[in-house]
Amino acid sequence: MFIIGELINGMYQNIGKAIKDKDKPAIQECALKQIKAGADALDINCGPASKDPVTDIKWLVETVQEVTDKPLALDSSKPGVIESGLKVIKNKAIINSTTADQQKLDILIPLAKQYGAKLIGLTISTKGVPQTKDQRLELAAMIISSASDKGFPPQDLYIDPIVLPVNVAQAQMPDIIESIHEFKIVCEPPVNTIVGLSNVSQGTQARNLINRTFLVMAVTRGLDAAILDPLDRELMDAAITAELILNKQIYCDSYLDAYRKKS
Amino acid sequence: MFIIGELINGMYQNIGKAIKDKDKPAIQECALKQIKAGADALDINCGPASKDPVTDIKWLVETVQEVTDKPLALDSSKPGVIESGLKVIKNKAIINSTTADQQKLDILIPLAKQYGAKLIGLTISTKGVPQTKDQRLELAAMIISSASDKGFPPQDLYIDPIVLPVNVAQAQMPDIIESIHEFKIVCEPPVNTIVGLSNVSQGTQARNLINRTFLVMAVTRGLDAAILDPLDRELMDAAITAELILNKQIYCDSYLDAYRKKS
Repeated sequence: MFIIGELINGMYQNIGKAIKDKDKPAIQECALKQIKAGADALDINCGPASKDPVTDIKWLVETVQEVTDKPLALDSSKPGVIESGLKVIKNKAIINSTTADQQKLDILIPLAKQYGAKLIGLTISTKGVPQTKDQRLELAAMIISSASDKGFPPQDLYIDPIVLPVNVAQAQMPDIIESIHEFKIVCEPPVNTIVGLSNVSQGTQARNLINRTFLVMAVTRGLDAAILDPLDRELMDAAITAELILNKQIYCDSYLDAYRKKS
Repeated sequence: MFIIGELINGMYQNIGKAIKDKDKPAIQECALKQIKAGADALDINCGPASKDPVTDIKWLVETVQEVTDKPLALDSSKPGVIESGLKVIKNKAIINSTTADQQKLDILIPLAKQYGAKLIGLTISTKGVPQTKDQRLELAAMIISSASDKGFPPQDLYIDPIVLPVNVAQAQMPDIIESIHEFKIVCEPPVNTIVGLSNVSQGTQARNLINRTFLVMAVTRGLDAAILDPLDRELMDAAITAELILNKQIYCDSYLDAYRKKS
């Protein structure tokens, strides 16, 4: 599974402060820790307190690139902020994210194509968060078809069903999990699927347990990628073991160590 | 999920000794510990060293029944041993198990019917363990159709896909998990599905992690019941959380405690 580390995000107090103080070592340490723990890519988000995200994202990308060449996911709802990051990114970029709104698709798909970036498409629109599996599938189809029309390669497209907190949207959880399977069969070649994991346990008292249980369930239905906290070792162990059981990693007695060492 | 505690089994040294010495308190303590941990039923197996399983199973059933009225699963490949247990069982019995061999089905289905017992059907025959999903489905269909012919109620039938160790049959694991879903859709009303869990991690170094990851994956595909070690608290927490995410348990902040207290 493709793991995007979520910790370089200005909404976390230490990162918010590091962005404000332009404290490179703090950001670089956070990057390296996540990679050591198994992250394949790093999410970069200036956070809600950033007064100048166009400049801050550029600084964050340049800072992280000094210590790693892993792909970076530019995390903003503003195309201008994403483009600022794209301009300085050296390796494969991931745009996180577009919604299923035509206006956004018309800006972000060409931008992703221009920079050879991967693109995360959220099954959400200005009408709000979908309430059923069919609504999720409809929004996914809209993103996929728009990408196809614009000649964007499906293997670079990641569809996100929008994971809601189990404590407020429990009845929707089975649909969210099944959506992952349905996104995979809606077109050929299939698109990739992704979740922003931590939202599932927002406001609960058993966050890590709920995160790792949901992740294993999503992997069972074909999940390809997740944005998560790679420092949660039990979460990473669960992800590795689920892929082992699905025969995607070769078994050996020390498979946990073997898989971690690949990072 | 219906949890059958696996620990009263003569193959475990302490239980084997307790059976030999007719040590009631040791057996009763093992029964009560499992129930306290959340077992809905208890498996009863004399173990391979028992010289007189027909007598031993009767003693085990009577011993356990002195302290609990939970359902008991009579675990033997010999119909005579199972019948000996059935004769003294007071509450709902579970026959563990029949294979998909006509000779066994012709003995065990009528026996289950006569005693009003549930029946576990293994998708295995004298030809050996199935190697594909289709072979599993074929054997399941044979058990289901034989039960139907004999007027056995489908809601009392539990089909087991035969869980193999991941270290020797890794390539089969996705099929085993998908079989659980297919067993559920092969007839109407659907039969129940069950696994003997611990086999999946036999001979591995990360047994508990593999057990609980496999269990969550199986629950994702519709698993109804499992024979497992209920004293493995992380395993029970994973099972409870998977059912929570599938909206089968109502969420509350202290859902783990709430669910455990039901036992």
